[in-house]
Amino acid sequence: MAYELYYWPSIQGRGEFVRLALEEAGADYIDAAREAEGVAVMLRMMKHAEHPPFAPPFLKDGETVIGQTAAILLYLGARHGLAPKDPAGGLWTHQIQLTLGDFVAEAHDTHHPVGVSLYYEDQKDEALRRAQDFRDSRIPKFLNWFEAILARNPSGGGHLVGKTLTYADLSLFQAVEGLSYAFPKATARALTKTPLVAALHDAVTERPRIKAYLASPRRIPFNQEGIFRRYPELDG
Amino acid sequence: MAYELYYWPSIQGRGEFVRLALEEAGADYIDAAREAEGVAVMLRMMKHAEHPPFAPPFLKDGETVIGQTAAILLYLGARHGLAPKDPAGGLWTHQIQLTLGDFVAEAHDTHHPVGVSLYYEDQKDEALRRAQDFRDSRIPKFLNWFEAILARNPSGGGHLVGKTLTYADLSLFQAVEGLSYAFPKATARALTKTPLVAALHDAVTERPRIKAYLASPRRIPFNQEGIFRRYPELDG
Repeated sequence: MAYELYYWPSIQGRGEFVRLALEEAGADYIDAAREAEGVAVMLRMMKHAEHPPFAPPFLKDGETVIGQTAAILLYLGARHGLAPKDPAGGLWTHQIQLTLGDFVAEAHDTHHPVGVSLYYEDQKDEALRRAQDFRDSRIPKFLNWFEAILARNPSGGGHLVGKTLTYADLSLFQAVEGLSYAFPKATARALTKTPLVAALHDAVTERPRIKAYLASPRRIPFNQEGIFRRYPELDG
Repeated sequence: MAYELYYWPSIQGRGEFVRLALEEAGADYIDAAREAEGVAVMLRMMKHAEHPPFAPPFLKDGETVIGQTAAILLYLGARHGLAPKDPAGGLWTHQIQLTLGDFVAEAHDTHHPVGVSLYYEDQKDEALRRAQDFRDSRIPKFLNWFEAILARNPSGGGHLVGKTLTYADLSLFQAVEGLSYAFPKATARALTKTPLVAALHDAVTERPRIKAYLASPRRIPFNQEGIFRRYPELDG
């Protein structure tokens, strides 16, 4: 039976980390909220499921409903060879993913530093300050951490964990994609100092299934409603 | 061999979620950064470990080093009966923990909406706005979600998952503790509408090992350096 992914149908957002894993795995899945009535079904499940997800994305696999991006990837990674089979390697991959999740949450908060219930225009002054701190301190700190992990991976080969691709590699690719869209200047600057991160990003774009996905209509373009938004005044 | 927990020695912070699990499990552990030279050792490990944690807390179990609060609890929960043994139940417990982590991060950002590298005093205007949104929208939204899970748990018994205590119960207790310290008025107001959450909090305080822990010097009092801080102007 096909997986059903539930996520907002007009943005990449957090759902994109799951989409990339499903695509790389060649898994049979339905992007359920992009079908007719899909959003209504999604909202109903959030309200009434025995295990209600707090927010999208969530994945339905038969009777199992799993929320939280990192938990979904933990589940998919073990089933589709996108994480090491040994428990320590699996946990390390998950730890990297959780840190990526923190990074993505901070990227989101650059344009919503006061609250998600307010428009960007109503928190622009705060956003200018937060984005500066994010560009100057946080982007380099996070990217340097990933660079150190890549450099220190005893298996080498350009992956974060072990010798083969994991969902953490796909997620780092997506984080770099999003940052490059939202903060093109600051990200390009940071990437010159983290060449292993840049190389991993480029290598992922060349994987056949990912390449096909990125060229397909299934890949939603970045826009001003997602996590990563291009407000030129927030870059620099 | 005793576990070694590494976390900032003067605050509860995110380390407290791990401390509570270790205490409830009756596990043999050292709060390593509270020993002499402990912080220096912690910072060295963050810099040089093959699997460097991005930030404290992290747990050392023999040669294994695990960072990210939720990943540590996933590891401990399986070893100490603080999570269901079946994979679906374990993942659901983890999903709840990840949502608690999001809630805690938002609580932190009420006093640091611009950036962690700046003092509260330098982002107080932004903090006033963010705290209002947090009190009015986010505290009720999160607590209502936990209330629904407690009400919907088919096993009943006042636990989030299954019939017995999990680390998610301990973490929800700690979130309520922190919120009640930082936002006493707003939290008391929200808890009147989420009686199952309030009852779970109270039940956890009566567990013998937790009760002994809370009365011991191992429990660091809340203060103005942790995640949960009492700035009266942010409550209301």
